[in-house]
Amino acid sequence: MNEPVKQLIDAVIATHAALRTQKPLVQCLTNAVSSNFMANVLLAAGAAPAMVDNPEEAAAFVQVASAVLVNLGTPTAAQVEAMRLAVKAAHSVGRPWVLDPIGAGGLSWRGAVAAELLAYRPAVIRGNASEIIGLAGLGSSSRGFDSSNDPADAVAAARELLAYSAAVSASGPVDHVVGTHEGQIRLFRIAGGSALLPRVTATGCSLGALVAAYTAVAASPVLALITAHVHFALAAEQAQTVAKGPGSFMPAFVDALDAVDAEQIAQHARIDSIELES
Amino acid sequence: MNEPVKQLIDAVIATHAALRTQKPLVQCLTNAVSSNFMANVLLAAGAAPAMVDNPEEAAAFVQVASAVLVNLGTPTAAQVEAMRLAVKAAHSVGRPWVLDPIGAGGLSWRGAVAAELLAYRPAVIRGNASEIIGLAGLGSSSRGFDSSNDPADAVAAARELLAYSAAVSASGPVDHVVGTHEGQIRLFRIAGGSALLPRVTATGCSLGALVAAYTAVAASPVLALITAHVHFALAAEQAQTVAKGPGSFMPAFVDALDAVDAEQIAQHARIDSIELES
Amino acid sequence: MNEPVKQLIDAVIATHAALRTQKPLVQCLTNAVSSNFMANVLLAAGAAPAMVDNPEEAAAFVQVASAVLVNLGTPTAAQVEAMRLAVKAAHSVGRPWVLDPIGAGGLSWRGAVAAELLAYRPAVIRGNASEIIGLAGLGSSSRGFDSSNDPADAVAAARELLAYSAAVSASGPVDHVVGTHEGQIRLFRIAGGSALLPRVTATGCSLGALVAAYTAVAASPVLALITAHVHFALAAEQAQTVAKGPGSFMPAFVDALDAVDAEQIAQHARIDSIELES
Repeated sequence: MNEPVKQLIDAVIATHAALRTQKPLVQCLTNAVSSNFMANVLLAAGAAPAMVDNPEEAAAFVQVASAVLVNLGTPTAAQVEAMRLAVKAAHSVGRPWVLDPIGAGGLSWRGAVAAELLAYRPAVIRGNASEIIGLAGLGSSSRGFDSSNDPADAVAAARELLAYSAAVSASGPVDHVVGTHEGQIRLFRIAGGSALLPRVTATGCSLGALVAAYTAVAASPVLALITAHVHFALAAEQAQTVAKGPGSFMPAFVDALDAVDAEQIAQHARIDSIELES
Repeated sequence: MNEPVKQLIDAVIATHAALRTQKPLVQCLTNAVSSNFMANVLLAAGAAPAMVDNPEEAAAFVQVASAVLVNLGTPTAAQVEAMRLAVKAAHSVGRPWVLDPIGAGGLSWRGAVAAELLAYRPAVIRGNASEIIGLAGLGSSSRGFDSSNDPADAVAAARELLAYSAAVSASGPVDHVVGTHEGQIRLFRIAGGSALLPRVTATGCSLGALVAAYTAVAASPVLALITAHVHFALAAEQAQTVAKGPGSFMPAFVDALDAVDAEQIAQHARIDSIELES
Repeated sequence: MNEPVKQLIDAVIATHAALRTQKPLVQCLTNAVSSNFMANVLLAAGAAPAMVDNPEEAAAFVQVASAVLVNLGTPTAAQVEAMRLAVKAAHSVGRPWVLDPIGAGGLSWRGAVAAELLAYRPAVIRGNASEIIGLAGLGSSSRGFDSSNDPADAVAAARELLAYSAAVSASGPVDHVVGTHEGQIRLFRIAGGSALLPRVTATGCSLGALVAAYTAVAASPVLALITAHVHFALAAEQAQTVAKGPGSFMPAFVDALDAVDAEQIAQHARIDSIELES
């Protein structure tokens, strides 16, 4: 392991420890499919969830939340209004928030919502490759919510989105994270995970919530994003060793999110990093 | 096994294989209780879920969906508007859609919604016996959402509903499917399953979504319905062998939906079929 | 075991048996995070769930429901309207209903809703210590939805809430139940449970639903509340013996809710009871 990667992994370990200590409260404005699993993922990882997503309370709750997640999976008119109010409040008080632009490239209504929310500067944008490409307006062959693009194809789109956000990731078999680290625009690739991860619904959504949790405790948005991806990848690897299929993977994965520790990160995290030309 | 049943099972095997190959995208407008489990059931079975159920996007998404599920479990005014738009679009472009009329017999508001939606001709209607009887307006002793009727009691109601839909099923210990097959109106009975199935919420709802997935790949609506029931029954039987109760049944069932294969269908599917008098 | 406690445990056993026999139908107006798990908890415990929470149907369904749960976890304007209609109907026809005032102490909009609903006299109020203190207007140091207060600190608040409700509980490592029993205002403390219980989302919410189920069959609201807490605590203890973490705790807990029987209650229930000064 080269020296910069070793330092990065030490930073990941410290960020993971900070989450356990600080137990950040994550306000989630998320889709109906994900809310239960997402809350359990946050609890297992060491954070605290609060799904406050109505227009009457969303902005007020931002004041007590440590970070905010906005996920566009199943938006309603009222929830979108709550999202607007929440990200405006977050922007105003400097609370980090994460945008998960599910389906924003393929559906024009939520695409317009995502574009509008970007003005309030998310700390991180997290999606699959098709969503990142779609959000950047670079076109995508996605049908529905699958990612039919490889994360490597989304790097150019991710770089464009750095105009709005300090760090952007495209999830996939190898997660691709783009952001500014020590003064350079860099691409980080996190390997690992499990083929069962995309076969369970709301895993990507829950990763977005975990990213939000880490933004509350990390030294930088890009470090929050990398730590969340490493945490998820290691937990998925552990879970796969006991799962008999996608059904039993789910509880095993939640167990593993709870179990991941510094030693596992030190031994098993697989990250590489390259500088991107400016 | 007699020859017609053997041919039917071969058709079920082919339909199951088609699902795995084609991975149909199922748009679900469903109740809040079921959405997570339903998405996991679809993913495990080999399909792709998309829970697009707001009035702003529902009709547009029908264009890219392979099939549509409409489930009346927890309707809201906005979701009902989305259902209207979705089934109208599905009818217009010839996309198959499935109606799951939960509680339609017992609650007048959603009963009226179900009656209105029927005009857009679902490919399949799927419910428990009480719901099928209630939808056909034949009265039901159901309290709430339980099925207090035996599926055999719902056959007359199912036949009446063939005025709207090519195939109708009433789920129960033995599932009863009524529809036109090779020019005859027939009753198919699928045995198997598990007593734990009705002790887990949203299993019936998720069966409805799986039926929708199969309508996208099957030679006929009745074959889609039979295949979904066989797939479910075999998975439930497998899951029961490892489950210790209704809690552990759930992940085991999702694992088993993933594991069901042609050999298991050939060996364990239990279907009989009789012609109904016209 | 002293004689009054022995009699109380006999009453708990009888109440538990009544639930299994009568299978009460519980109408739940609950938050989006909890609905699936809550329905499974009710089914496993022996009751029947129905999540009817829209303004168009909520009041009508109260007529056929055995009991009603109102949980303020993720209220929307429409759901709050449904709650008003449901509790008004419940009050009018004498149907027992349970209030779970999640976050009511910390968020003013839902706090006002909770205060308004109290006028319709819930049979039971159930929350964590911070919520009970918040609802009674006694102030709370809660951040978000965690309980940062010890249940013992909530006893004074619970007593104040007896002005609205026959029984009040504050959940925690030792659950504190306050209510009138045999003509005295008493505090009951139920020990047991598992440290994993608060690490799984919606367990408290689901306890509220189980309390509602028991109000439909118990001799008194306080006995319903005690029985639900004992049932939960014993199931959690059982589940902990097989769980490897919060993920595997969840299915094990649902299995255990189904498995709890009279003998386990007789041997393992840990209740004490003291009279409170008037």
